Amino acid sequence: MIDTASLPGLDPPDFPRGLVWLLGAGPGDPGLMTLHGLHAIRTADVIVHDALVNEAFLEWRRDDAEAVHAGKRGGKPSPQQRDISLKLIEFARAGKRVLRLKGGDPFVFGRGGEEAQTLVAAGVPIRVTPGITAGIGGLAYAGIPATHRDVNQSVTFLTGHDRTGLTPSAIDWSALAKGAQVLVIYMAIKHLPDITDRLIAGGRDGDEPVAVVTDATLPTQRVLETTLGRAAGDVAEAGVKPPAIICVGRAVQLRRTLNWAGRLGGGLPRDPDPPGSGTGECPSV
Amino acid sequence: MIDTASLPGLDPPDFPRGLVWLLGAGPGDPGLMTLHGLHAIRTADVIVHDALVNEAFLEWRRDDAEAVHAGKRGGKPSPQQRDISLKLIEFARAGKRVLRLKGGDPFVFGRGGEEAQTLVAAGVPIRVTPGITAGIGGLAYAGIPATHRDVNQSVTFLTGHDRTGLTPSAIDWSALAKGAQVLVIYMAIKHLPDITDRLIAGGRDGDEPVAVVTDATLPTQRVLETTLGRAAGDVAEAGVKPPAIICVGRAVQLRRTLNWAGRLGGGLPRDPDPPGSGTGECPSV
Repeated sequence: MIDTASLPGLDPPDFPRGLVWLLGAGPGDPGLMTLHGLHAIRTADVIVHDALVNEAFLEWRRDDAEAVHAGKRGGKPSPQQRDISLKLIEFARAGKRVLRLKGGDPFVFGRGGEEAQTLVAAGVPIRVTPGITAGIGGLAYAGIPATHRDVNQSVTFLTGHDRTGLTPSAIDWSALAKGAQVLVIYMAIKHLPDITDRLIAGGRDGDEPVAVVTDATLPTQRVLETTLGRAAGDVAEAGVKPPAIICVGRAVQLRRTLNWAGRLGGGLPRDPDPPGSGTGECPSV
Repeated sequence: MIDTASLPGLDPPDFPRGLVWLLGAGPGDPGLMTLHGLHAIRTADVIVHDALVNEAFLEWRRDDAEAVHAGKRGGKPSPQQRDISLKLIEFARAGKRVLRLKGGDPFVFGRGGEEAQTLVAAGVPIRVTPGITAGIGGLAYAGIPATHRDVNQSVTFLTGHDRTGLTPSAIDWSALAKGAQVLVIYMAIKHLPDITDRLIAGGRDGDEPVAVVTDATLPTQRVLETTLGRAAGDVAEAGVKPPAIICVGRAVQLRRTLNWAGRLGGGLPRDPDPPGSGTGECPSV
């Protein structure tokens, strides 16, 4: 047991009534929650959380604290962003300590910026605590370093769809294909055929290694290794379901050496698909 | 006080003797340490840490645990990467639980991949726990979302120098300038004139907003707002010292609304340079 009050230099921030605290929950493993995040969860009067947030965090809340679900699940329509923001404002104005718990990092494809803007415009004070984003943490659990001096001096994170729900049109895909070294794509499953086509049309090699990481950092994590040219077909064939993070680039090959979780086993994401087997299969649990 | 043993779903990983655990310390604020990271710090027999790691973490170690400095400081020459790796192997082979504590995230411009490869090649088992990277967390504390649906569908992180110590030559700067929407540059101070020249030569607007965040997430955090054309001159004039994170893109403008830390004050990074003042000054503490 560790008592967090005994840690020198750790200064838990104030959580006054009427404040909305935007908190990143990380990719899945509860152990990736930050200490400030734990403090916020234990202090909040109400926790408004996304569907992708690990339910363990809700069990950490005070017995008298409320948990409110604010995300798409089980085929029900997603609440509009505006409805969520209005709910947060309502709780804050009622004098509650409001925790907005979002998967990953609130400012990395998490729409935290939009919620924050609405809150600030309504005069509601906010605080933001980042979380581990799946594009970094999920890859790390898969044994793929987002950067490595022998491979890349840059890494580009992108989303598989923009606000219209289509492949992002504001991106210059040809320049992206040429200028990005390693790509990490969030929410890429739906438009994967289009995305891989655009990258290959922009000059990327169809044989370039690709890893598809599902349920990142959870015991159910799976990694499908494929290539840019085969990725869309392999993902469809294996029936890969979101959430998934897709990495494109030579960094994927480092997994042959660095798949530490697969080696350690025991409570870690198991990996029945040995690195480099290249079968394109995504075994179910 | 919070007792971490009371948290359902939190499963502290094994830390057997002879294992090297690569842990991201985050950008600076001790509250951004993860729960797995805290567990690792409290369990380790020896902690091998970089200069940029907050010293508070060393105070969290067991009374009988050793702390070994493995990074450049005070003008002394930096130990070679190979020397650090050999030290880690030596500790592991002596049967110690070895914690390798690195600033930010070990796999984001942290050379964790190289250390991990050397360890694996030596037959030393490893574990990796990600940390909040300054390019996301540091920007969040400065009120700059790395992504926002109105601004960008991608964000590119890059380092200001490659292994030769020069501006990275493997990057296609012209394509990067066209294909990257928001850029976040690590270790950019030294080669900032060259980097900004390359981006402008590649077609970026010299008037594009730029934020330079120093001492990210610490009470000494400062933010200098400038433009791509003026950044190198303003940084030199203000005497900005590393570590610094530089953000290039429209995301910087969101700070005018989202500078939550500047508004809350009290133990948070204060910001005597009001957002949008555009003075180009970087006030000292």
